[in-house]
Amino acid sequence: MMRIIFLLSLLFALSNASVQDFCVANLKRAETPAGYPCIRQIHVKASDFVFSGLGTPGNTTNIISAAVTPGFVGQFPGLNGLGLSTARLDLAPKGVIPMHTHPGASEVLFVLEGSITAGFVSSANAVFVQTLKPGQVMVFPQGLLHFQINQGKSSAAAFVTFSSASPGLQILDFALFANNLPTDLVVGTTFLDATTVKKLKGVLGGTG
Amino acid sequence: MMRIIFLLSLLFALSNASVQDFCVANLKRAETPAGYPCIRQIHVKASDFVFSGLGTPGNTTNIISAAVTPGFVGQFPGLNGLGLSTARLDLAPKGVIPMHTHPGASEVLFVLEGSITAGFVSSANAVFVQTLKPGQVMVFPQGLLHFQINQGKSSAAAFVTFSSASPGLQILDFALFANNLPTDLVVGTTFLDATTVKKLKGVLGGTG
Amino acid sequence: MMRIIFLLSLLFALSNASVQDFCVANLKRAETPAGYPCIRQIHVKASDFVFSGLGTPGNTTNIISAAVTPGFVGQFPGLNGLGLSTARLDLAPKGVIPMHTHPGASEVLFVLEGSITAGFVSSANAVFVQTLKPGQVMVFPQGLLHFQINQGKSSAAAFVTFSSASPGLQILDFALFANNLPTDLVVGTTFLDATTVKKLKGVLGGTG
Amino acid sequence: MMRIIFLLSLLFALSNASVQDFCVANLKRAETPAGYPCIRQIHVKASDFVFSGLGTPGNTTNIISAAVTPGFVGQFPGLNGLGLSTARLDLAPKGVIPMHTHPGASEVLFVLEGSITAGFVSSANAVFVQTLKPGQVMVFPQGLLHFQINQGKSSAAAFVTFSSASPGLQILDFALFANNLPTDLVVGTTFLDATTVKKLKGVLGGTG
Amino acid sequence: MMRIIFLLSLLFALSNASVQDFCVANLKRAETPAGYPCIRQIHVKASDFVFSGLGTPGNTTNIISAAVTPGFVGQFPGLNGLGLSTARLDLAPKGVIPMHTHPGASEVLFVLEGSITAGFVSSANAVFVQTLKPGQVMVFPQGLLHFQINQGKSSAAAFVTFSSASPGLQILDFALFANNLPTDLVVGTTFLDATTVKKLKGVLGGTG
Amino acid sequence: MMRIIFLLSLLFALSNASVQDFCVANLKRAETPAGYPCIRQIHVKASDFVFSGLGTPGNTTNIISAAVTPGFVGQFPGLNGLGLSTARLDLAPKGVIPMHTHPGASEVLFVLEGSITAGFVSSANAVFVQTLKPGQVMVFPQGLLHFQINQGKSSAAAFVTFSSASPGLQILDFALFANNLPTDLVVGTTFLDATTVKKLKGVLGGTG
Repeated sequence: MMRIIFLLSLLFALSNASVQDFCVANLKRAETPAGYPCIRQIHVKASDFVFSGLGTPGNTTNIISAAVTPGFVGQFPGLNGLGLSTARLDLAPKGVIPMHTHPGASEVLFVLEGSITAGFVSSANAVFVQTLKPGQVMVFPQGLLHFQINQGKSSAAAFVTFSSASPGLQILDFALFANNLPTDLVVGTTFLDATTVKKLKGVLGGTG
Repeated sequence: MMRIIFLLSLLFALSNASVQDFCVANLKRAETPAGYPCIRQIHVKASDFVFSGLGTPGNTTNIISAAVTPGFVGQFPGLNGLGLSTARLDLAPKGVIPMHTHPGASEVLFVLEGSITAGFVSSANAVFVQTLKPGQVMVFPQGLLHFQINQGKSSAAAFVTFSSASPGLQILDFALFANNLPTDLVVGTTFLDATTVKKLKGVLGGTG
Repeated sequence: MMRIIFLLSLLFALSNASVQDFCVANLKRAETPAGYPCIRQIHVKASDFVFSGLGTPGNTTNIISAAVTPGFVGQFPGLNGLGLSTARLDLAPKGVIPMHTHPGASEVLFVLEGSITAGFVSSANAVFVQTLKPGQVMVFPQGLLHFQINQGKSSAAAFVTFSSASPGLQILDFALFANNLPTDLVVGTTFLDATTVKKLKGVLGGTG
Repeated sequence: MMRIIFLLSLLFALSNASVQDFCVANLKRAETPAGYPCIRQIHVKASDFVFSGLGTPGNTTNIISAAVTPGFVGQFPGLNGLGLSTARLDLAPKGVIPMHTHPGASEVLFVLEGSITAGFVSSANAVFVQTLKPGQVMVFPQGLLHFQINQGKSSAAAFVTFSSASPGLQILDFALFANNLPTDLVVGTTFLDATTVKKLKGVLGGTG
Repeated sequence: MMRIIFLLSLLFALSNASVQDFCVANLKRAETPAGYPCIRQIHVKASDFVFSGLGTPGNTTNIISAAVTPGFVGQFPGLNGLGLSTARLDLAPKGVIPMHTHPGASEVLFVLEGSITAGFVSSANAVFVQTLKPGQVMVFPQGLLHFQINQGKSSAAAFVTFSSASPGLQILDFALFANNLPTDLVVGTTFLDATTVKKLKGVLGGTG
Repeated sequence: MMRIIFLLSLLFALSNASVQDFCVANLKRAETPAGYPCIRQIHVKASDFVFSGLGTPGNTTNIISAAVTPGFVGQFPGLNGLGLSTARLDLAPKGVIPMHTHPGASEVLFVLEGSITAGFVSSANAVFVQTLKPGQVMVFPQGLLHFQINQGKSSAAAFVTFSSASPGLQILDFALFANNLPTDLVVGTTFLDATTVKKLKGVLGGTG
């Protein structure tokens, strides 16, 4: 009995050390450059470390026949400060995740089913394209333009992970055509012609 | 034609900027604290960014009825310097990935099939255990003791990612019993009795 | 006189630059992944950078005949954001700091008095043990299982420093036996037998 | 005299501490994820920390009426490991630095002369455009698409700095059209029509 | 029309991912070790990424015939979390930016006009001095003592960038003589004589 | 027996994962910005993690009546990549570690014996001085000017740790007076008079 008392006092002393093993995000508080403030340790529960949003295919009934389902810190607060985040890709036949970048993270993609043709382009404009089967993994270095496309006959899906809890996602077409960036600036900075730009602005809901 | 010439000279000038988008590991050279030296850009090919070792289940016909197949920088040199690595877990029914830590990385686990009961223990000795179904994701904060166990009736598998190209893997039982750490030091630092220690040393091939 | 006025105005302009040399922790505010918010510079005083809690031996009248006295950011707020923390170890004869890890930091240990046998185990299960005398320093790489034990006849003490203001401290026996982690999960993930697990849970106040 | 001898021995002892203030790149050696190996300290000279390549305007007699002159680690080895690099932009009237990203760095731009309209697009597709005059500074967050254009009547120039010695530079048009990325993949991943893609491939020297 | 609806729903889903491209500082909130909390994304505007305070020369009618105009995070909140900050140096003939360090950042200096003799001293006490002309760039490694002086006959100016949003600026003479550090401590730790120390304290407004 | 074979094959598979727990420096190879290349794991031994050079007082029979004994990566290769280094300070009565900075690290100082008056000056020129007794700890934020002085009647000693394996050490007087920095540049950048500068250059072995 004395032993236990001694031990518990030791345990108490040590657990007072106020260490930070994890920092579950308090999404109601303002973010900092290193992530969100933590919720209090006393409120942390096992389910904070689990995310169930990637278990079912996203809705691919859209123009790209594809879906990206994010499991970033905004959806999965347990990731805060741990340098990782997740997502699920679903691609119907002919589906495509269009050219995009993640400004703040590298990515690994694990093919769950189907066949995915994926590629990225380096700063030196070299092209790295591979067609992946289930169980294959591909890595996309941080910030480079890349894409995934389903050239097979059945649906494809992938689980992806990023090297940041907040990797960002900049989809090229949306960045160029789905906002109010003036047509002449898009033309001037891409060498696309105004007709093409205006047409894509029309499709993607952009103005200007 | 003149335009192309001008452009190509611009292109050439820019590609001379010698940027580092990625750094495929030269595993034959000595590692540094930040990873391996890069192979020359001219030798990099698309397949360097793909790893095919996780597509088939590991052999679970062993004492733990489970297998860990790593896709770290040593197996997948394209990960070098990108802050990510991968692995596959396979667990036959009753299979277990025993208590272990990754000293240098946090981990996300995506269940591919079956049911996995996973958990970790915090510095404050709090226990976080969850039973995961296919498609669920769990995150394990860096350096904490954790485990995965298959309490279901069918095989289970998971794809895992780490926040470092070289996460480390320290399996508790191997660290304690599968080497020449003297029995009296194990006893003295774990409060296990000598009989238990010697028995496990016997099973795991340890000496001392 | 004019010179001084010019100078002071320069000085004022520069000190307005709002630089962050240090960030003394406001422990009443929620932590972030990078540490605590800072108290206002105007409230910072010299004593915030001094910690006096390591000057006297910890109480070693306990089951481990040893004591760990932490000087982490929770006790020593001036460390916040500076990437360092401190602690003192005291070991009576036969005292032991049991197998443990610091999930978020490497450690250097400087022996103050007595003799300390210290060791760690690598991911490859290699054992690195040394018996240290006063003035010797040993480094323990981040996240690896390690221990300190006093095999001498007199008391021993050490000053230790960590490479993080919040290094964490996971003591193996407490993580396994001093909480409500179910006995069958402990048995299943450690290969210890249920009798041993239950006995240690009894000693360490665990349940389940 | 004795004093000097004592002092010099102290000095010698301290300078033996083998510290790393800087690490001038040895560009002949293989790069690592953290940069190039250092040349020996004994070979470092003051001019290694100076770069003279940005003093004169780049040649803007080209299709974009603009020039980017890099002062990255490849041109300016003294930057190695210091987390900074430099470049100069020159834009003749109507000149444009086309849409591009720096995958590994944020950028600050200081206008030297003329007027520069600069902008970037966020992950949420918000547009941030400003027309800058000499002396104004703009910051472009890491990895986001941005551009600079001279809408004025005289030449413009800027000095830019990046938050990495090796920031990368991915020019959108070159990434899409100046390589062998197959036309159908460009069409499929950008929603541009094949005619547009083939025309731009023609202009920019691409194939496929 | 349906296409647009599908697309917008996709867009909406993705923009919900709550990514952090940038973190404009809320200077009214307490700083953290990683910078200030962010203002809400909805309040961010293009002008937050522009700083106009460096366009005009600082007032050099002072004892050093020079001025440092900072564009750190305190003046330029858009820099928060991006690892960069800025400043402008102006030096009348014979003007000098006295010996100083930036405790938290390396620096690149781009000469705008005039001639600047700049130098730094390494940990090994080696001296690296160069006289720079307009357009030349010099890099000063983190934390080392350095200076800039105008030995020419006309005014000089430079744009400087730092590898941190909060680089710090410790001016040697101010650190030694412009505060209440007791004269005997200054004498004891610099080997200057008390007369010199008291004289400089008088000039710089120090006491003690 | 079969069990052991299965286990050993598992063990072998896992230890093949080529993880990097530590990276003992190969001091014969060129350093990188992240430290030295590692020696081969097979050559690492327990003594690589121990440093014995701080156990005896440094020689204080010199002009400063003090000694700094470094245990940086150059002396203690096991520290490489672990973000920590060590040193010992010895101060005879009236001994002084003169004003200095560590350009690349914060420092914690633990007083071993005697009394040490220590202080630092912030970027805002605020002074933080404390007189420390044995067992007290003081932290000095990265890059700021600081000093230690023994105003007591007996010898003093301290163990110090830095937040980098290669912290640097720039001693103010040596940086200003112990090299060939021309007297007029020292005068111009410090406001000391030429007589004082030349006298100190004489004492410290400087020229110019």
